[in-house]
Amino acid sequence: MKPTISSSISSLKASPIREIATKLEILKEDPELIGLGGGEPSLDPPDFLLEKAGEILKNSKGYCATAGFKKLRQRIAECMKEEGFELTLENILITNAASNGISVAFKSLINPGDEVITILPTYVAYPGLIQLNNAKMVEIRTGIENNFRIDIDELNEKVNKGKTKAIIVISPDNPTGRILNKKEVRAIGEIAKENGMAILSDEAYYLITYNGKFEPFNEFMDNLVGIRSFSKTASAPQWRIGYNYANKDIIDAMIKANQYDIICPNVVSQKLIIEFLKEENRAKREAYTKYVVETYKKRMEAMGKSLEEHLPEADFVKPDGAFYYFVRIPGIKDDAKFVSELLDTKKVAIVQGSAFGMRKDEGYFRLTFVSENEERINEGIKKIAEFLKNYKN
Amino acid sequence: MKPTISSSISSLKASPIREIATKLEILKEDPELIGLGGGEPSLDPPDFLLEKAGEILKNSKGYCATAGFKKLRQRIAECMKEEGFELTLENILITNAASNGISVAFKSLINPGDEVITILPTYVAYPGLIQLNNAKMVEIRTGIENNFRIDIDELNEKVNKGKTKAIIVISPDNPTGRILNKKEVRAIGEIAKENGMAILSDEAYYLITYNGKFEPFNEFMDNLVGIRSFSKTASAPQWRIGYNYANKDIIDAMIKANQYDIICPNVVSQKLIIEFLKEENRAKREAYTKYVVETYKKRMEAMGKSLEEHLPEADFVKPDGAFYYFVRIPGIKDDAKFVSELLDTKKVAIVQGSAFGMRKDEGYFRLTFVSENEERINEGIKKIAEFLKNYKN
Repeated sequence: MKPTISSSISSLKASPIREIATKLEILKEDPELIGLGGGEPSLDPPDFLLEKAGEILKNSKGYCATAGFKKLRQRIAECMKEEGFELTLENILITNAASNGISVAFKSLINPGDEVITILPTYVAYPGLIQLNNAKMVEIRTGIENNFRIDIDELNEKVNKGKTKAIIVISPDNPTGRILNKKEVRAIGEIAKENGMAILSDEAYYLITYNGKFEPFNEFMDNLVGIRSFSKTASAPQWRIGYNYANKDIIDAMIKANQYDIICPNVVSQKLIIEFLKEENRAKREAYTKYVVETYKKRMEAMGKSLEEHLPEADFVKPDGAFYYFVRIPGIKDDAKFVSELLDTKKVAIVQGSAFGMRKDEGYFRLTFVSENEERINEGIKKIAEFLKNYKN
Repeated sequence: MKPTISSSISSLKASPIREIATKLEILKEDPELIGLGGGEPSLDPPDFLLEKAGEILKNSKGYCATAGFKKLRQRIAECMKEEGFELTLENILITNAASNGISVAFKSLINPGDEVITILPTYVAYPGLIQLNNAKMVEIRTGIENNFRIDIDELNEKVNKGKTKAIIVISPDNPTGRILNKKEVRAIGEIAKENGMAILSDEAYYLITYNGKFEPFNEFMDNLVGIRSFSKTASAPQWRIGYNYANKDIIDAMIKANQYDIICPNVVSQKLIIEFLKEENRAKREAYTKYVVETYKKRMEAMGKSLEEHLPEADFVKPDGAFYYFVRIPGIKDDAKFVSELLDTKKVAIVQGSAFGMRKDEGYFRLTFVSENEERINEGIKKIAEFLKNYKN
């Protein structure tokens, strides 16, 4: 007799973006494929790190404390002073990138039955994580008609005193590119403070801004879990490294949870990031960030231009940050079918809006501009337009 | 108002071994410290890997599928043919080392209320993981008086039909060094098969044997989740990389669970392991394993000799595999107090038996022989003996 699968996992939907990634692992070898799907940086990590990579890898050894190297936690706290945070190493937990950061924050805060407010569309993992933690997702829907802004009155109404445990915010947002402004940050912070809610602030893209700047929740440290990663800012998803910052009680709880999940974060990756954040590398680091943002900004502009030119049917808001356009093509009845057939016939990868919590007949799609250069982005959009011309729902 | 910590995490004990690791992060710099505590290999990963490390790190990019690179999964399945397993890549999940492997197996199989049979003493993480998954730990106690062997009759009695979901076995065992023999493997396998139980087989040390050989559960693939890591066999805990093997249904469930936890395993580490497992590197790999086992065997013998000479009060069984002696010193009333005072006054790190599920007044302690050379091992045992002479309970 075979053992059965746990009900929490068997009732869980596979992450739609990961299904595509699995399909793409085969297609990736195909030079014809145009990747506007997963948000995978096409840039390399900074040269000044790669130059030392071999040496760093050779000199890395053993385990470390679950929270990560004290030296790295200390340095991150220092760097965050410039953003207006007053933190010590006790406010920092090194993670195996943001996926671990998100998952450990959920485990440490959410009880079965808790309500978690989620702004839709949202990053693909959140609905599944809420389900895995036996919590209830309370949705606030945004759309292109209101530029994906959050209705603060609606947020106030959705808070269920004593039941609402957290609100998830992403800024710059995946998939919409929205950056929360100071007023929104303050309003969300005050609501969280008043109701003892946690603000799960997904800041994977905080340095990747084109218009406006990332606004920190630094006035709300009692309620905040900030989740950051070096996957996007150092173009290093392959290193699986990031950090969470929060008040000491929450950090201590997350350390306990991570003891049973990861033991300790990757030691090699931590040493690479220690090098990255050294004061003596400040100029190089800042130049690298500038290069990343400028490169992506050009691609973002190119995609916008191409969308206007070749896909006039599509509605979109120009992203203020992050890696994506979240476009709406009217008249599509099943977004996943569209994506799957587009990939099969035109070899262009994009992601359906329903993966981010939209209805499948709303016709939303996420297109990334970070994996291909301007020419190939334009090529991809033209292929989508050709495909759309003959598309049958 | 601050958000509260989830009840599952606030009721969880911090892992005792991780507490020591945190304390040791400061002490590690002290050359006087003799580390007989955490099972951290003092050897380096193989030279033929380190030589390519820089190049491999530079050529690693992006994310990969959650289950890991197909090429690596395929190669592991091939390598396991020689052990008598008939597997394909669909039976392999690449993990962020065994801690992720264990945790994802629990999530994918255990429902709240399930019973999980655990042989005590056991690896420190298991009781906590059982608690985190809201399952019930059913204990089978072993001790030095029966050479830490498992009583199969007792195992049969402890199976609660329809309630018992899994049995955790570790072979070679941490902390006792016991290797399950063919008869025991078969008996456990049959009981699992008959009752639809999963065998969670922790095989982190399967290549590290001094007397006898690791016996695989290859006849019981329907019920098996094998959990392996390269932390011990390639002396590379810093890379956080391993794999689980199981039937396809369980692998698929574990892939789903890992989508929400790790997204994908470390890409650099996977590429290093692809290199490690290449057919062309077979002779180098086998030579490396031989070197590891011979080095540790010498240290194991040295620790045994030193224990006999300087600590005649201690009872112990010579380990057949893994990294540890699990000794009993009669008359100790609080093993954690002993360990803490030993560290403070003599700068020798060991781990209390109660961290592995023994009672604190049984006087068990785990001593590793893999972190120090023969001379320093002897030095450490002498210091424990001196400390014991004046120890007050």
